[in-house]
This record gives sequence, structure tokens and C-alpha cells, in this order.
Amino acid sequence: MDADTVRRSTALLTDRYELTMLQAALRSGAAHRRSVFEVFTRRLPNGRRYGVLAGVGRVLDAVEDFRFTTPQLDWLADQKVVDETTLRYLADYRFSGDIHGYPEGEVYFPGSPLLTVEGSFAEAVILETLILSILNHDSAIAAAASRMTSAAGGRPCIEMGARRAHEDAAVSAARAAYVAGFGATSDLAAGFTYGIPTTGTAAHAFTLLHDSERDAFTAQIDSMGRGTTLLVDTYDLNEAVRTAVEVAGPGLGAVRIDSGDLTLLAHRVRRQLDELGATGTRIIVTSDLDEYAIAALAAAPVDGYGVGTSLVTGSGEPTCAMVYKLVARATAPDGPLVSVAKRSAGAKSSVGGRKWAARQPDAEGVAAAEVVGTGPVPAELEPYLLHVPLIRGGKVVGREPLAAARDRHLRVRDSLPLSATQLSKGEPVLPTELRLAP
Amino acid sequence: MDADTVRRSTALLTDRYELTMLQAALRSGAAHRRSVFEVFTRRLPNGRRYGVLAGVGRVLDAVEDFRFTTPQLDWLADQKVVDETTLRYLADYRFSGDIHGYPEGEVYFPGSPLLTVEGSFAEAVILETLILSILNHDSAIAAAASRMTSAAGGRPCIEMGARRAHEDAAVSAARAAYVAGFGATSDLAAGFTYGIPTTGTAAHAFTLLHDSERDAFTAQIDSMGRGTTLLVDTYDLNEAVRTAVEVAGPGLGAVRIDSGDLTLLAHRVRRQLDELGATGTRIIVTSDLDEYAIAALAAAPVDGYGVGTSLVTGSGEPTCAMVYKLVARATAPDGPLVSVAKRSAGAKSSVGGRKWAARQPDAEGVAAAEVVGTGPVPAELEPYLLHVPLIRGGKVVGREPLAAARDRHLRVRDSLPLSATQLSKGEPVLPTELRLAP
Repeated sequence: MDADTVRRSTALLTDRYELTMLQAALRSGAAHRRSVFEVFTRRLPNGRRYGVLAGVGRVLDAVEDFRFTTPQLDWLADQKVVDETTLRYLADYRFSGDIHGYPEGEVYFPGSPLLTVEGSFAEAVILETLILSILNHDSAIAAAASRMTSAAGGRPCIEMGARRAHEDAAVSAARAAYVAGFGATSDLAAGFTYGIPTTGTAAHAFTLLHDSERDAFTAQIDSMGRGTTLLVDTYDLNEAVRTAVEVAGPGLGAVRIDSGDLTLLAHRVRRQLDELGATGTRIIVTSDLDEYAIAALAAAPVDGYGVGTSLVTGSGEPTCAMVYKLVARATAPDGPLVSVAKRSAGAKSSVGGRKWAARQPDAEGVAAAEVVGTGPVPAELEPYLLHVPLIRGGKVVGREPLAAARDRHLRVRDSLPLSATQLSKGEPVLPTELRLAP
Repeated sequence: MDADTVRRSTALLTDRYELTMLQAALRSGAAHRRSVFEVFTRRLPNGRRYGVLAGVGRVLDAVEDFRFTTPQLDWLADQKVVDETTLRYLADYRFSGDIHGYPEGEVYFPGSPLLTVEGSFAEAVILETLILSILNHDSAIAAAASRMTSAAGGRPCIEMGARRAHEDAAVSAARAAYVAGFGATSDLAAGFTYGIPTTGTAAHAFTLLHDSERDAFTAQIDSMGRGTTLLVDTYDLNEAVRTAVEVAGPGLGAVRIDSGDLTLLAHRVRRQLDELGATGTRIIVTSDLDEYAIAALAAAPVDGYGVGTSLVTGSGEPTCAMVYKLVARATAPDGPLVSVAKRSAGAKSSVGGRKWAARQPDAEGVAAAEVVGTGPVPAELEPYLLHVPLIRGGKVVGREPLAAARDRHLRVRDSLPLSATQLSKGEPVLPTELRLAP
């Protein structure tokens, strides 16, 4: 991609200290030391059994678009954020290093080396904030979404949380939910940007706008056809269902219930629909659902779940704790790498060295351990290595269709021990085994 | 703003059902009924004492930029989201109605009519998703930020959560935190976009990059001067502080502690700095702070707080529960308004009618009640009305500098009863009194 076709600059989506470190390192000469940064997390949140990596495709776009525009450089100069030498470096900035890591949709565990960014310190350090923003957000949504699609069994889940999230985060949330198995989104921008199927018919306002519920249903059927979904809880549910079938006939596509005791109401509405001959009319429920509510509805006659707030807020865990740490660096641009690690506070220490990772299966092919190591890869683990090349010499090599990430997630989730999909709190479903070279 | 200078189109940041409702209403003729939509929330989250409205200025920009581009219209046509008539309506769409509401930085309570959007059903309904996205996100951050700045007393708070939030949400989060009293942000895009002061010096990676901590400190001082902030917890804290003062001299600007028992360490580092003669060197702490940790550090010798994760995730409440409801509509484009309200499920019902709101003070001038009514405003409440005009006849009239919203928030917070700033859970600090016209 040449400079003219940059989608938009992502370069200022960056903490100021990345640029001041760059300036100081350019001055000390250390900026050109070959460096390896690693993205990992020390824990899964809140007793979750596995994490879900999402946002990798967005990282690739964002690194490509990490170019400083003239107005941005002028602003940095004007604000004296960095000096002339650094501004010149930034003006020419293009990431020229390598990134490899877990592919999108993969699951992960504490210590999984999710992304390895290798290049000069200068070019790698300034990507920290942006890469973490994307992965921490998108993976938090995907982790919650995966629990929901798992709880829903084969029933379709629809993402409809845009109004509860930042307007741009909502688009990425729809994308992450899709990776984790959601079938559609309410968010038009997510459809436009990522080709995710969009869905939606009407809100209570549409019923209130008309002089009667019958007028509203008639107007909707007239415009969208009998296959549409009618919202039946604006006034009296029983009356609304009767009116809906009267207006649309027994071929009505679906009704949506957005309040009340959903289990009870789903049974009642199903019975009523069947009595009215609308045996093929589906029931969609959409009121403050999360993975627990979805699981509780497993035995209710529900045909689809619309999930909003709890999805886009990560169901209690709106961000991941991924960090971006320097794990190795040379003392010269082409010198040998030396492992480095912070060693001050126990809880925040990390393991130095460039890592590989493999997911070792048991005899039945079920995943048994996340093995993370430094040094040579043991031959028996070669077939199970997790890293794929994403960027090589600055060029994106790991782009894939979103559907590939979605397929991968569903396939990989199926390969985990059955306890992975328990909703209760517990330990990560796989242990992380460290195999450090001496 | 004419079409050429639209910053970027916000029109697809919209749930699909807004457009399908529009289509059905255009067809039924109800689309042109004059309508009033209201943004409000039924509750404050988690025992909070007050809410903080943020994002109003962003709403004004977003409504101005709500224009459908040709590629967007082509996509809507291609995907058959709406019909030809609706596409023509969207191609010409410009909001031409009125918006008034609480000004940015104001506090609010359950039932406060935060924004009133008035126009045809067609032009007002399709703004729902976007307006809610902005206000629900930004107000969630501002509410958490206000608790933090209040707990910090006069000590400065720095927003540094970009890496824990979606990259674009992070910019808005920095803005919302500034409205609620934060003094600076780490996020360069927030500085570039909104003029918020930015700050930051170095991470652990900078120390690890160099051959010794002394080399790193020397490089940083050399580049940024003695007034910089040195990060002192990469290896041994005590040694680092000694090295820092040796390298920088007693005129060192600040040290930053990013791990460990901050109260204990702050006391220890303060004593050490004082013994080394660095009595003016400030101590900045930045490890997983929230409002409770900040309050707990009140007696520690700390000079500033950097807050990340818990700020950008709303300290446990990453979104607000604001809704956008049709509260009145005419039966003709110029007919008289009729109150409307959903009345199905108790918990989700709402109060119909166009509202006014006033904050009634007691004899000492302390806020005593949030009075929300329909019909004529009682004369004694006239001086305390809260709504300001924001958009009139489609033209933005309520734009103001961000500093004005920030000043307003700090002033309004001071006018609340003292119990407003208690961190413990409780009832909203003001009761909401309804005065409905018969």
C-alpha cells in the first residue's frame, strides 16, 4: 500500500511516552538495537476457562496505516512532543520488521505468546499502544461472545450492542463477535466495513408512532413482507401476538420479545402462535441477555438471541490484561539477542526471551497443554506450533478472510476439553507449561 | 458546514432497524409526523450517587456529519437494506429539527431528560443509535473520572488507559475524563483532536533496552532534561531512586512507581528522596488505580495519579443505561403533540410527554431536588432550568470549548450535597420529582 492509499493514519493512537522513549533512544544510539516485543497476558479474567484472540486482522491494517501525516508532524513539533531528529524519523516511519503470532480466532491461556514483534527498538516500541488497544478490546468482546454462542448451542446469536458502546468500538465489537460465532449484527457500519450480515426490523417507537399497534404491524408487513419480525411487547403481549398473526397470517416470520420473564413468555407465546396456526413463526428474545441468561433459556422455545450490553462490555470483563513487553534485544543492530525482563515486583514480572508456543494434544486429539518455550522447538511439538507469520520485512503476509478466523475459532473451541465451555468460574482449561532454554 | 467539509460520515454508525422503520414509516405516511424523542436513564449504576453527562459536543459534530455518502448508499441498495424511496430520502438527509438538553459536564439522575430531539419521526428516529453510543460511552467514563478526581482532592490525575480501550474509544475516553477534571492524557490523538494536554516519558522497555539502569536514566535526562519523570521500579526501587538522583541531581522532576504497595513505597521513596536532597522531586503512582485506591493514598506523599484500566472501563460500569424513547408525536406534520409511552413491562416503561427539568436548590444554595415535569414550568423553577439549546432548525447553536464543560462539571459537583462524593454505594444524592401536567 503506498502513501496515497492509506485508509487513515493510525499513528497518533499512541501514548506520548512511546515517542519520548524513541527520542531518547535515538539520542543514546540504542534505538537501532534489534528488539523483540511480546504480547501476552498474565491471567484470564474472573475464572474464565480460555481467552479468544480477536483483532489480529485489524492490527495488520493498523500497522500498515501507521504513517505520520504532515498535520500530525506539525502538531508534534508545535507541542514540542519530540525534537527535530525524531520528527524526521517519524516522517519516514514504515514498520520494516517481522510480526508473527497466534492467528485470529485462536484461544489462549496465561503466558501464551500471542504476538511477537521484532525489529529495531525504534520501529517496534511505538506500535505498543495501538496493538494493545486493538487486541485488548477485540479479544475481550470475543471471549464473551464465545461463551454466549457456546451457551446458545446451535441457535443463532445476533449482536445488537452498538448503542451501549463507543460508536467506533461498536463496529469492532460486531467484528469480534462474528469471529466468536455470532451470526449477524445490527450495526450497519460493521456490515459495510467487514461484510458481516446485518439484521433488524423495528423498535417500540415504530408502534408508538402509529395510531394503533394494528396500524404499525400493517405498515411493517406492508413494507417488509410477512417474513419480518414483529415486536410484540409494546402494550399487551397476548393481544399483540393475536394482532400480529391476524395482520401477517400464519406465515409471519418471527416475533420479538424484549422484556419480562423470557422463559415464561416464550412458552406462552409459542403456545399461542401454535394455536393460531403460526407454527413456523420464530421467537426472538432480546432483553439484557448474557451467557447465563442464554443458558437458562436452553429449554425454552426460543429461536434466536439478540445480545447487546453484556456483549459489547465483555460480560463483566470489558478489556483484557494483555501487555507488550520487551523480552529480548541486541546490543547492536545485528548483534545476538539477549533476554531481558523486569524483575522488580513479583506480580508484574515477565519471562524474557523470544518464545515459541505449541498446543499439545492427548492421545484422543483433545488439547492437553499450552507449551511455551524459548530456544529450539522439541521435534515432537513441531506439528502443533501455534505461530503463523503475519508481517515479514514490513509486508503483511497474514491477511485472511474474516470467515477463516470464525471457522478457526469454532474448530479450535471444539478441540478443547469439554470443561472449556462451563460457564462457572474455574482454572484455565489448559495448563501453560514453560520450557525455557538454559 | 457544507457537504465538502464533512469530517467523515457517521451515518452508518446506526442499527439497521432505524432504516427499516424509516422505510415502513415513509410508506405508511407516518414518517412525517412531528415527534419528540428523549434520552434518559432509569437508574444510576451500582449505587452511584450521581451521573455525569459527557459527549454532548461529540453528538453535535456527529449529527452534523450524519450524511450518507455515495458508496454507503450503493451498499445499502446492493444489500437491499431499504427500498428506492428510502434511499432517495437518505441521500438528501440533513437533520433539520431541534435538539436541546443538559449541557456537557452536568450531573444527572434517574429520569433526567438529558436530551430532547424534536423533528419528523423520520429525521429523528435514525439518530438513535449514534446519539446513544456517544452519550452512553462518554458518560460512563466521565462518571468514573469524576469519582477519581474527587477522591484525588487537588492532586492531578492523568488519563493513561488507551491500551486498555478500543483505539478510537480511547480518544473519546480521554476527552470525557478531561471534562470530569483529569488534567492530562497519555493519548496523542486526544491532544491532537481536542487540545487536551498530553504527558508521558518512558516505560520499563526503555530501561531494559539499555545496558544498565544508569545508562537508561542518563539517556532519558540527556534527551528530556532533569525535569523529566524517571520510572524507578524496573529492578530494585531503592537502588533506582539513588541512581536517579545521582544522574539527574536533586532537581529531578519526578519519579514514577508502577507496582507494589504504593502507600508503603511512596513513604519510603519520599524519605529517600528527601535524604538525598531531592525535596522537590515529585512522586507519581500508576499501578491499577481506581477511585478507591486513590482515596486510600490520600495520606501518602503522592503528587499525582496515572489511571488506566479502571478509568477507560468506567470503573466497573463501562456503559450507561441511557435510552432514546419516543415520548410524544403528532398525527400530522404540524398537528398537536400527543404523549406516548410503552406500557408493557413495569421495569421498562417510560413517562410520555416533552419534559423540562430544573435543579431546585435549598435555602443555602445546595441542590435539593431534580424536578422533571411536563406542561408549563412553575415560575419559581424558571431560574433553575437545566436545558440549553443545542441544535435549532438543524443548525448547531450549542457548541462550546471543552474547558467550559470541564469548568461546569467541577462547579456543579461542588453544588451537590456533600454526600455526593461518598464512594460507598447508596441512593442518588438528589431525588427526582415528577411534576406531570394533567
